[in-house]
Amino acid sequence: MEDLMDATPGTTTDTMRVLWVLAHPEPRSLTGHLRDDGVQALRDAGHEVVQSDLYAMGWDPVVTAADFGDAADDRLDVAGASERALRRGALAPDIRAEHDKLAWADTVVLQFPLWWLGVPAILKGWLDRVLVQGYAYGVRDPATGRTRRYGDGGLAGRRALAVVTVGAGTGLGPRGLHGDLAETLFPLLHGTFWYTGMQVAEPVLVLGANRLDEAGYTAAAADLRGRLLALPDGPVLPYRSQDGGDYDDRGDLHDALAPGRRGLGVHLRG
Amino acid sequence: MEDLMDATPGTTTDTMRVLWVLAHPEPRSLTGHLRDDGVQALRDAGHEVVQSDLYAMGWDPVVTAADFGDAADDRLDVAGASERALRRGALAPDIRAEHDKLAWADTVVLQFPLWWLGVPAILKGWLDRVLVQGYAYGVRDPATGRTRRYGDGGLAGRRALAVVTVGAGTGLGPRGLHGDLAETLFPLLHGTFWYTGMQVAEPVLVLGANRLDEAGYTAAAADLRGRLLALPDGPVLPYRSQDGGDYDDRGDLHDALAPGRRGLGVHLRG
Repeated sequence: MEDLMDATPGTTTDTMRVLWVLAHPEPRSLTGHLRDDGVQALRDAGHEVVQSDLYAMGWDPVVTAADFGDAADDRLDVAGASERALRRGALAPDIRAEHDKLAWADTVVLQFPLWWLGVPAILKGWLDRVLVQGYAYGVRDPATGRTRRYGDGGLAGRRALAVVTVGAGTGLGPRGLHGDLAETLFPLLHGTFWYTGMQVAEPVLVLGANRLDEAGYTAAAADLRGRLLALPDGPVLPYRSQDGGDYDDRGDLHDALAPGRRGLGVHLRG
Repeated sequence: MEDLMDATPGTTTDTMRVLWVLAHPEPRSLTGHLRDDGVQALRDAGHEVVQSDLYAMGWDPVVTAADFGDAADDRLDVAGASERALRRGALAPDIRAEHDKLAWADTVVLQFPLWWLGVPAILKGWLDRVLVQGYAYGVRDPATGRTRRYGDGGLAGRRALAVVTVGAGTGLGPRGLHGDLAETLFPLLHGTFWYTGMQVAEPVLVLGANRLDEAGYTAAAADLRGRLLALPDGPVLPYRSQDGGDYDDRGDLHDALAPGRRGLGVHLRG
């Protein structure tokens, strides 16, 4: 696991294959313009980009039995039905299309405005519907029988970057009243990216997005471009892996690590 | 603010008016059965319950310009357009119907299975579309000009309860590898319930929901019934209010409070 954590995916090839997932209803928004600039910067540098512009696609975010074709039981068990549908190739075509993009990509960018401290519903429903059991998570290692997760999983070998526009400009730090943004994003960064085996790049945060002037936009776009192009060697969050020996059989961090501490910060090494 | 925080809404009347919002695709699931039992227990005790069963309603979770009628600009600014539509009475009828329910309710229950450490997309889109600017948040106090939030806001005077079914049974504590559930729920409990002025009841958590046997279900349902009926006097999370003097002008907690600590836990008093 240490090898995987310290690996720098992408350095074995000069070209990144980026799946860029955007969740904003207005392409002429700050978020939309940053997407345009970011995608252009990647392409100018020779990288390949495929987009899932969820609003433009009319993406349906609601998990229903129709996702699973004839693999859905009369009494719907979402996780079980999704895995059976995956095995039978019976997942809905729009889900399979996203799987094809993920199979191609070595880099996944999720770009969104922060709504209620989380992703917009249309993007939550991309996670809910696309990252099904047996595909992104709940994948067993045939050698050990262990379920691969947290640093390993169905999306291992990829890196993930969140690009987040945030209305508030202050109160987002370690003692800020909106909650430490590094921790409020934990469900996405640790509970989703890391859980499914992806390396988690330090997120790109555009704060004060509601009041950004032209100079502010220019700076934010330059920062984004720099971070994107540096992705193969850029900073990743040093989350602890499940199989690195840091957790006991019940999934609790051993007492000797981060001794006396509690809360989401204990899952970062060092 | 201290008065508000220590108030026990509901004690002035014997009858609760409960809006119960459910987000699960299968009514015969564990989650669905718990809803049935919980609603029945409330009604048996003389409380009134109105439901928003989002799957049964075919709730559309995606924010679009159509939500805002003629108040949407050509270039959509979601927050501004939603507030203008609110003022004009031009919000989409399905949003206004939820506002009517919220106007009636003194208690809001959100019940859902935890997917990717958060609410299912259909429920995220209930928050995104219903809790618009000028209604749930961004409401100014005419006397002080301050924006009412965190312990005050458009939904003040109500209490909110999250009822969460969680597949995992372990690893959810203060040092658990899934992240401390008390903190991973922060975007909903603090960033949404508390932000909009609601008192936040200690959430009802049903852990190990994937493997619950009949005795486990019986215990979980009894716990839920007890918690529901005790809501008027039950435990609320002692979050710090914005206007209680705990935060400085930039929104950071004063150094003298929770000295030396950082992370989401600092926003709880005591």
